[in-house]
Amino acid sequence: MNSEKRNIIVGQSGGPTAAINSSLAGVYRSAKERGYKKVYGMVHGVQGLMKGHYIDLSEHIQSGLDEELLKRTPAAYLGSCRFQLPEIHEDKEVFDKIFGILDDLEIDCFIYIGGNDSMDTIKKLSDYGMLTGSKVRFVGCPKTIDNDLALTDHTPGYGSAAKYIGTSVKEIIRDGMSILTAHGTVTVVEIMGRNAGWLTGAACLAEGEDCQGPDAIYLPEIAFDVDKFVAKCESLLKEKNSVVVCVSEGIKTADGKFVMELGDGIDYVDAFGHKQLSGTARVLANILSNRLGCKTRAIELSTLQRAASHCASRIDILEASEVGGAALAAADEGDTGKMVVFVRTSDDPYQANTEVKDVHKIANEERLVPRSWVNEEGTYVTDDFITYVRPLIRGDVPPIMVDGIPRHLYRKGYEDIISGKYFEDKQ
Amino acid sequence: MNSEKRNIIVGQSGGPTAAINSSLAGVYRSAKERGYKKVYGMVHGVQGLMKGHYIDLSEHIQSGLDEELLKRTPAAYLGSCRFQLPEIHEDKEVFDKIFGILDDLEIDCFIYIGGNDSMDTIKKLSDYGMLTGSKVRFVGCPKTIDNDLALTDHTPGYGSAAKYIGTSVKEIIRDGMSILTAHGTVTVVEIMGRNAGWLTGAACLAEGEDCQGPDAIYLPEIAFDVDKFVAKCESLLKEKNSVVVCVSEGIKTADGKFVMELGDGIDYVDAFGHKQLSGTARVLANILSNRLGCKTRAIELSTLQRAASHCASRIDILEASEVGGAALAAADEGDTGKMVVFVRTSDDPYQANTEVKDVHKIANEERLVPRSWVNEEGTYVTDDFITYVRPLIRGDVPPIMVDGIPRHLYRKGYEDIISGKYFEDKQ
Repeated sequence: MNSEKRNIIVGQSGGPTAAINSSLAGVYRSAKERGYKKVYGMVHGVQGLMKGHYIDLSEHIQSGLDEELLKRTPAAYLGSCRFQLPEIHEDKEVFDKIFGILDDLEIDCFIYIGGNDSMDTIKKLSDYGMLTGSKVRFVGCPKTIDNDLALTDHTPGYGSAAKYIGTSVKEIIRDGMSILTAHGTVTVVEIMGRNAGWLTGAACLAEGEDCQGPDAIYLPEIAFDVDKFVAKCESLLKEKNSVVVCVSEGIKTADGKFVMELGDGIDYVDAFGHKQLSGTARVLANILSNRLGCKTRAIELSTLQRAASHCASRIDILEASEVGGAALAAADEGDTGKMVVFVRTSDDPYQANTEVKDVHKIANEERLVPRSWVNEEGTYVTDDFITYVRPLIRGDVPPIMVDGIPRHLYRKGYEDIISGKYFEDKQ
Repeated sequence: MNSEKRNIIVGQSGGPTAAINSSLAGVYRSAKERGYKKVYGMVHGVQGLMKGHYIDLSEHIQSGLDEELLKRTPAAYLGSCRFQLPEIHEDKEVFDKIFGILDDLEIDCFIYIGGNDSMDTIKKLSDYGMLTGSKVRFVGCPKTIDNDLALTDHTPGYGSAAKYIGTSVKEIIRDGMSILTAHGTVTVVEIMGRNAGWLTGAACLAEGEDCQGPDAIYLPEIAFDVDKFVAKCESLLKEKNSVVVCVSEGIKTADGKFVMELGDGIDYVDAFGHKQLSGTARVLANILSNRLGCKTRAIELSTLQRAASHCASRIDILEASEVGGAALAAADEGDTGKMVVFVRTSDDPYQANTEVKDVHKIANEERLVPRSWVNEEGTYVTDDFITYVRPLIRGDVPPIMVDGIPRHLYRKGYEDIISGKYFEDKQ
């Protein structure tokens, strides 16, 4: 091991979550405990780093209270990016530039918190480092509400999103029961997930002794049949006045067309001739009201589901911090080109350990919900899914309330960085 | 006073809220403490009552724990309705029918928890009662997230919705700061309120030492100018990459047209030739992306804002219960044709008392946000608004969590009542 420890740098990448900053807190704490001098944070990921944008995290996390606030702050504290590095053989200059900056900052460990695309960054940087004999170790820390990373039982961020979805769907179901309508009401709830149904499946968490749960759940892994969907709703409306169905934004028909691109003969074209895409829930609600004459409501959980740290899962926030610490520990102990994963050893009592895996086997892979975890009709998840997801939402992280609203960790100097000025400079 | 107390009946009416069941709990407890024999609940308000649908609440609220669960259960536990009684001179039969049922049930006090329309019901029933010499006392208990009832400082339900709105808008603002976009992003958040801007104004609660708050707030009380709105966003985008504006669903242009009916030259027509209304946020987002070329996001807080009991305000839930008790107390002590109101005596420390007011001065009236509580430009609320709303969101009501999800009070027999069968019967 490196006997004289120098500095580390950490970045956040991809879509924000309610837990990504808890991983940042975990990296920070672990780096300090292991004797590193400075903990740098990339501002807006490698994209910002290449422009020389980074901060010294110790100027931001100055106390244990700051750490706790950081764990409760949604979205990427450091700023995130959606940026893919070129292949090494395509553009060596980009890599030389990044490694030059890492040299200047005397970096030993490079931790990147992100999903599939971000693990591609870890893969390429660690490959380049090995080719060039660099001593910097590159380790990935998993993060995505989509829960679609390969080789890990689950990903930090998913549990909190799942808890929010279960809670909100349950509240929507109650709301729907309040008022009877002449021909019944179908509420279509649209949940994130282009290809993987992990988030939408979590709507099953609304079900319990006090709630029947949603009446149907449609995941993007299974081809969506509009006629069968309408028939299902028609049949449900015979049983109850208020029907609630949950759909992934990414559900597609058998020919691979997104439902949000359908219009049941409806085309929405703006003044410039651009086709406007409605959301999936809105399209389905329109189809139902046209065909069944029922009242419909379309609800998108939208950004709220990935940002709702006021409803975070304790397991998720603790694990996110833990996995951040484990990523730093792995890099400290010499690993590179790796990502930290969870291996579940027991559902009940829930137990999971962290391990490190080769990032080459994770980057750009996608883990979908197994077909056997959805019923044959394709309209609800099975007990296997419920057993899987239930432990991940356990426990709460009470927000630190100030004046009745959750307090987040303020980011000094953020206004400059997010201003148009920064971006002009970048172009 | 009636020396031999008999029974009381309570109903819920209008749009559900996160606090309406806390008022129900307050009525129940107060009726029991004051020695009434039975507490009946109308199922789906007077509409259900006329069909003979009611329950004995003591079969549902069997313990102190049940009461606590009821206070944390969103939406109308008894079922609600949107139903307006005819004028007394128009249809005496309807009134005779209701009073006949009240006689059969040996009712002394009739409490109705609701908003403007529901107070119209109290007004008509108490008028009819006085005309016919009935001994039943009719008292209204205020409820509406819209906060638009006359003669009261505020209404139960508003504080919890405001807390959810402030919390969610703050999380949306953080989310928006995560990723920079080439031409900037404007997020348009649509908040409930057709005529009154109390809910949308509550977006200001996101502002604090750790958050700049939304960049603009548009209330329905002030004529909306699309060109000025676009210019404002254009100007904001020069200062920052992520702009968040909050709008009431009910904003209208100077000629009285709803913004959601505008399309900036865009007409959405379905296969049947029906004009499809987008939401207000979606319309504005489309206008911005067409005119400014920026990225846009449209977020509707939708039903979530009125059902989010997981994020309830403690002040609100306690006051809702208190006002329920006060309504029963007023009826017990002989009042009829009245509604309970809040009179605020101090902002800081917050203090408010309940009083009873003549329902004739409340029914069908609408209380709007004063013009002086919005800045001259019409783009943000003033300190007066903030001072008014801040105390109403203070304190939390931790949900009773079971398996990681908030527990609600299960409603026995609900399945039958909400089924299509009930409704067929009703027609």
